[in-house]
Amino acid sequence: MQGYGVLLHLLAAAGDDGGAALLVHLEHEGPGLRLGVAEVGLEHVTDVAHEVHGIIPDHDDPGLVEVGLLGRPHLLLGVGAGCKAYCHTVHSRSHRRCPVAWYSYGGRPAIVLRVTDALTTESPDAGSAPPAVDAPNSALFTDQYELTMLQASLHSGAAHRRSVFEAFARRLPAGRRYGVVAGTGRLLEALASFRFDEAQLTFLSDHRIVDDTTLEWLAGFRFTGSISGYAEGEAYFPNSPILTVESSFAEACILETLILSVLNHDSAIASAASRMTGAAAGRPCIEMGSRRTHEEAAVAAARAAIIGGFASTSNLEAGRRYGLPTVGTAAHSFTLLHDSERAAFEAQVASLGRGTSLLVDTYDVEQGVRTAVEVAGADLGAVRLDSGDLVAQARWVRQLLDDLGNHTTRIVVTSDLDEFAIGLLASAPVDSYGVGTSLVTGSGAPTAGMVYKLVSRQDDDGTFISVAKAAKNKASVGGIKHALRRLDEHGTAQVEVVGVGISPADDGNDRPLMQQFVKEGVLLPGWTGPEAVTRAAERHALSMAELPGAVRRLQRGEPVIPTEYEEAS
Amino acid sequence: MQGYGVLLHLLAAAGDDGGAALLVHLEHEGPGLRLGVAEVGLEHVTDVAHEVHGIIPDHDDPGLVEVGLLGRPHLLLGVGAGCKAYCHTVHSRSHRRCPVAWYSYGGRPAIVLRVTDALTTESPDAGSAPPAVDAPNSALFTDQYELTMLQASLHSGAAHRRSVFEAFARRLPAGRRYGVVAGTGRLLEALASFRFDEAQLTFLSDHRIVDDTTLEWLAGFRFTGSISGYAEGEAYFPNSPILTVESSFAEACILETLILSVLNHDSAIASAASRMTGAAAGRPCIEMGSRRTHEEAAVAAARAAIIGGFASTSNLEAGRRYGLPTVGTAAHSFTLLHDSERAAFEAQVASLGRGTSLLVDTYDVEQGVRTAVEVAGADLGAVRLDSGDLVAQARWVRQLLDDLGNHTTRIVVTSDLDEFAIGLLASAPVDSYGVGTSLVTGSGAPTAGMVYKLVSRQDDDGTFISVAKAAKNKASVGGIKHALRRLDEHGTAQVEVVGVGISPADDGNDRPLMQQFVKEGVLLPGWTGPEAVTRAAERHALSMAELPGAVRRLQRGEPVIPTEYEEAS
Repeated sequence: MQGYGVLLHLLAAAGDDGGAALLVHLEHEGPGLRLGVAEVGLEHVTDVAHEVHGIIPDHDDPGLVEVGLLGRPHLLLGVGAGCKAYCHTVHSRSHRRCPVAWYSYGGRPAIVLRVTDALTTESPDAGSAPPAVDAPNSALFTDQYELTMLQASLHSGAAHRRSVFEAFARRLPAGRRYGVVAGTGRLLEALASFRFDEAQLTFLSDHRIVDDTTLEWLAGFRFTGSISGYAEGEAYFPNSPILTVESSFAEACILETLILSVLNHDSAIASAASRMTGAAAGRPCIEMGSRRTHEEAAVAAARAAIIGGFASTSNLEAGRRYGLPTVGTAAHSFTLLHDSERAAFEAQVASLGRGTSLLVDTYDVEQGVRTAVEVAGADLGAVRLDSGDLVAQARWVRQLLDDLGNHTTRIVVTSDLDEFAIGLLASAPVDSYGVGTSLVTGSGAPTAGMVYKLVSRQDDDGTFISVAKAAKNKASVGGIKHALRRLDEHGTAQVEVVGVGISPADDGNDRPLMQQFVKEGVLLPGWTGPEAVTRAAERHALSMAELPGAVRRLQRGEPVIPTEYEEAS
Repeated sequence: MQGYGVLLHLLAAAGDDGGAALLVHLEHEGPGLRLGVAEVGLEHVTDVAHEVHGIIPDHDDPGLVEVGLLGRPHLLLGVGAGCKAYCHTVHSRSHRRCPVAWYSYGGRPAIVLRVTDALTTESPDAGSAPPAVDAPNSALFTDQYELTMLQASLHSGAAHRRSVFEAFARRLPAGRRYGVVAGTGRLLEALASFRFDEAQLTFLSDHRIVDDTTLEWLAGFRFTGSISGYAEGEAYFPNSPILTVESSFAEACILETLILSVLNHDSAIASAASRMTGAAAGRPCIEMGSRRTHEEAAVAAARAAIIGGFASTSNLEAGRRYGLPTVGTAAHSFTLLHDSERAAFEAQVASLGRGTSLLVDTYDVEQGVRTAVEVAGADLGAVRLDSGDLVAQARWVRQLLDDLGNHTTRIVVTSDLDEFAIGLLASAPVDSYGVGTSLVTGSGAPTAGMVYKLVSRQDDDGTFISVAKAAKNKASVGGIKHALRRLDEHGTAQVEVVGVGISPADDGNDRPLMQQFVKEGVLLPGWTGPEAVTRAAERHALSMAELPGAVRRLQRGEPVIPTEYEEAS
């Protein structure tokens, strides 16, 4: 396990194929971990249609069961403490019990089923390292008041009232015409490591942040509710019900900060990214803003940028975790390190090949371009311009390259670009844009401003009632929401229709927006891991294509479609 | 080890006390890890003046040796692969050899010396959980071009040229009069986990990002250079040499993104925090912005806020990792959850006590205050106002509280505060400020805009030459820098004096600014962990007190002191 991160997601589709199945059965056992050896032979390990069922968790609490692929040849089941696991494999209808390895993952017990070498002959990539997601314990990415509210509501008994919380944005950043949902996949991944383990409980206990009753509740916490909302990549508008959490008050309450941190950050970046890729009008954009934001935020920013249409990132950890395409060649320091620009270019080309991108503005751009072409010849991949008047420069550099016979050498521009600068460069012969600061700071809107509000809860007699605070400028619309995007006869979006307490009526060709991510504690397949990023980027392109063309205007304006409420009559 | 994060820092002062000492001796052994049991009796384990020496690392490479306290009863030594450790304890001058446990920490081998229970009787807090810093592997918080430059420079041989890189800000955010350095401690902690382990190397190899020679170099990478710069909490100005890295080009080059990510983020937050605490003029400020930024950035933001003078944070993980004071009571959802505001207040007071803070603006503020006082009586700790015209509201709420006899009940205000709003509230009877969005987004400047530039490198003949690129608007001053703050006869700062290639002359009462953090691969004590945060906050207060009074003006202006270069004549 050492050195392996874990990609948490459900295996796709259970029970609907007739192939080999992996059955996992968990039974009670006392707490504590044991080390065993996992040598499980499976047929068709690369077939993700394995069946996983028969899980009997601890304390009769169904909890959230995570099932993930540790690369192809590994399966990981995260389970509650005090469980015991047996693995059965089905070979031509025969069941075989096999040993499993207990591991701790993210501070909680987990089972890893490792597939034998014999199997790797059937799965060509089984020997390669898995794409990996590090998952630190996320339980204390939490504002203290959530736990004090938990304590007080456990005391009053109201903690157990069924509740509906909703994450939404009251408004878009000033002048923006749309926002882009991102972070849901990361949130679901983080939810799997939202566990109050020894380190967390000890801290809370030592600092007397909550009482013993609350500590006990937290120690046993597994999210058993349901989560639905807008899929990643989807455009959103003011009051779009982006995420809905249905559970007891206690369970939903303590997720507030984690949910908002992830959605507010990632959506801000994806929204900025989408404006930039719109302005780039098909020319590839490269995310290179890691150095301008927190090192972990940088990884999330790269992920959000890809969802917003970026082609690649310079961030290696983002490449490792989410399988994103990474790029990079050299900085000015590389030129300065060598005795001359020529020596630097020669070193770079000798090592990275003629297809590399040479940075030509360390001293004099024209001389830089000439030297680059002399060193790399007609096959030079690209030159990078990182300063000066990029529009004018790109024009004469293109001319110079063409004059030198380098018709296929591309021009990459970087240097504090934002969507407006990219728009200005539309007429210049530029091949791709590298974007940093402006992207990772949300291009003036570094946070999406989403809030997370209790909108409905059960009364003592079990009926749900809508709730909302009345505070000035912060009034919310109570009640559980459903949403669809109303399309006209051409398939163009007209209205964001939000049903309050009801599903709004589909007028024939409307597109429903609510997706279910977690159902009664079980993470549904398809919303996490690298695949979710790819799907989100595709979804984003479709969502943008469906909106009125004005959505791509960069000038300040109103949301490109209005949000309208529909209530039960 | 499970569930324990690790606090990496050097034990304070070696060899200068006469008490019991822990001697650790490491000898070569083949690679691979063994599990043993650590049962080491130590006298005075809570005395941090243990002596650690006699370390013989692998491959004759001194590397970076981290020594940390895993809470009081644990010592952790991170060492290179292929080492062997013996632990000797001194009891009345007798040496005892004792077994140690090998563990992997952050993917690298580490030794943990666990103290027996017997000892806990001597150290009252030895049984409590340690303050913990999670340290994910930081090696791929790196832009790809650093590794391709590494490859090309290994190929050309220039990788081994001794080099000096400098992190600095060419300018402050528009209109700002000063900046505040923060992040250095986090950077040094992350440096300890900057290791290319299996997961990192496999990714780089699978995606053919670098060649085998480079992979081999990365696998053996340990930072052996030196790092110096401004201490955390210190004010800085344009071109202040905030961080200087001296090493081979290769070693310094690959740290670029990590260094900039941490410094740019944390300094942006600390700079905003400092303006806010200045405007608050002594009234406590509470950091509560976690939900408005990436979940890990939130932890760093809380840390930076404390350095910038904040009194506490709502972020629990920041409390756990860095020992920061945490606070929190209840949100509007808690009121909405209950059948009435009164029922909610009663539940909160019953569980959290009369000293709690009641949020009174869910429905009607006046009624909320009256109900709060009726429920909690004269001992009510505070009321929180989160909406509306806070200045006017604070005045009449104070009057109402006084009329009701609640003279000691404090007024906490929150609601999108920034330094300007705090300044406006100076005349209102407010007791503390809760600040969120504006703080964690740097109050309009979410990144500090620092860059990391090669300023000096060795030539083939070994002489150092200053280097700088000439690119328009991005020109840098080459050469290694030293800095001091020139004070007048009253001890007030006048000029930021930066010596280029020389230490600037001290005119008698100047204050040197450069501190050494890492010396030839060894982390020097005092710059990491919770203590470093406390010291940085104290240092910040002193640094601000030394600057001209105009530093506290919030209006746009020039840097409050000019930066002047001094060169060898």
